[in-house]
Amino acid sequence: MADGSIVALLDGTLVDPAEPLLRPDDLGVLRGEGVFETTLVVDGHPRDLDEHLVRMAGSARLTGLALPGPDRWGTAVAAVVGAWAGGSQMVLRLIASRGPERGEPVCYVLGAELPASSLRQRRSGIRVLLLERGFTVDVGASAPWLLAGAKTLSYGINMAALRHARANGADDVIFIGADGAVLEAPTSSVVVARGRTLITPPDEAILAGITVRRLFRAAAAAGWTVRTERLGAADLHAADGVWLASSARLLAPVVSIDGRPRTDGGLTGDLAELLQMPARS
Amino acid sequence: MADGSIVALLDGTLVDPAEPLLRPDDLGVLRGEGVFETTLVVDGHPRDLDEHLVRMAGSARLTGLALPGPDRWGTAVAAVVGAWAGGSQMVLRLIASRGPERGEPVCYVLGAELPASSLRQRRSGIRVLLLERGFTVDVGASAPWLLAGAKTLSYGINMAALRHARANGADDVIFIGADGAVLEAPTSSVVVARGRTLITPPDEAILAGITVRRLFRAAAAAGWTVRTERLGAADLHAADGVWLASSARLLAPVVSIDGRPRTDGGLTGDLAELLQMPARS
Repeated sequence: MADGSIVALLDGTLVDPAEPLLRPDDLGVLRGEGVFETTLVVDGHPRDLDEHLVRMAGSARLTGLALPGPDRWGTAVAAVVGAWAGGSQMVLRLIASRGPERGEPVCYVLGAELPASSLRQRRSGIRVLLLERGFTVDVGASAPWLLAGAKTLSYGINMAALRHARANGADDVIFIGADGAVLEAPTSSVVVARGRTLITPPDEAILAGITVRRLFRAAAAAGWTVRTERLGAADLHAADGVWLASSARLLAPVVSIDGRPRTDGGLTGDLAELLQMPARS
Repeated sequence: MADGSIVALLDGTLVDPAEPLLRPDDLGVLRGEGVFETTLVVDGHPRDLDEHLVRMAGSARLTGLALPGPDRWGTAVAAVVGAWAGGSQMVLRLIASRGPERGEPVCYVLGAELPASSLRQRRSGIRVLLLERGFTVDVGASAPWLLAGAKTLSYGINMAALRHARANGADDVIFIGADGAVLEAPTSSVVVARGRTLITPPDEAILAGITVRRLFRAAAAAGWTVRTERLGAADLHAADGVWLASSARLLAPVVSIDGRPRTDGGLTGDLAELLQMPARS
């Protein structure tokens, strides 16, 4: 994420991404306190930006963070997009770190090249491991302090799960609840197809996926049935196709689960079209 | 943590704590990736520093972080202690943030005044809520990617639980596993007394407490029985005393659990002495 990255503060000031921006006593650093969003910019157009800003405001409420409103981010986004000199697909991150105790949050926007691995995985698919997440889907409602529906800077477990997958011959992870429920991936949502029906788990203890929502809107308009439903591992194996959906990589077909190969039912092209996934850059 | 704080890099260079130190693309910020330790410095002497360095090396192993060895931190600790102009009790943090992708970790030591609330809570005790942690104690062994035994910068849930307590008339939290097991507090360990026996939960899905270890060593030498044992909420209510033990606040007696008052059995003074807790500063 070094070369070519662009960073802007909320007032639109561009700052050098290689220069320090956060104080050593920022609670975003010391405690992983803060929230973020990631989206894709294609040919200068951020995808679903308003929905990301609304979700970030929700994450801020769940974490007691006083954040500048959704209308305050446009200038920084425009500055990053305007200064971008990289490829046609840029990963755009909106970041709000809590700041020092009794200080203000540090808010900024960071643009970076879409990783080559994301482009490759859209085409060639991903091998996933099913890994235990350690809680049941009801904690979203019963234990809000577990922040199951917030997108926070405390992503250590998500990153550790991805490292575990890569160390074990896989590319990504689908988290399974203690009750056997399919939850989500460390940085994506799970979508399965059964015939002409698309299904995703209910957002009880998981982040509500903006890319899934967009896919489901377009699929419904094109005559698919779409719904949320609790799924188990057996449902993944039995499905006609399984995908991980996220805002930057967009849609990646799952080509193996715990080492067991599976197909996408020939559906990835159709879904990519519904999602207006950019052609190979 | 602003005024009077001291920050040093590993080579002993002092840097202004109000000046930025971490890049906007540091994975410690973006993903809460990194590890830390906290201890207390009393009259210029860091407590249990070697044990903290060993534990930090363990956290780094669990998170796949290539960290400078334990012997590399002494210069920075000495620089912070040497420059300290505050009170007799300083909170010392050792921090290692993962750094930018393909970059080096950012390591530093931060000294700050012990909060007045910590001094007060040592004397007057704390009101705790029992809050669900959402996993069972066996995840430490079965799901290492959940990082249950690592002290990482992803402390968002711990902080959210503390905010929940404070918004509900309490000071602190004891986490309870999905199986009813007493685990730990967001930033401390749980100790209970039954007569002349001190008990702490086994470190299966929790951080191994350095302050508890020190207390147990001293207590055993003074004729107490000490042991680890799985505890439930009923055991907390039935105990002769319950304390939260941590490296900076040291020992705080629990004076109520979920609003139900309880005593410390008159034992806090004895335990504070075993722990060589500094007299009121």
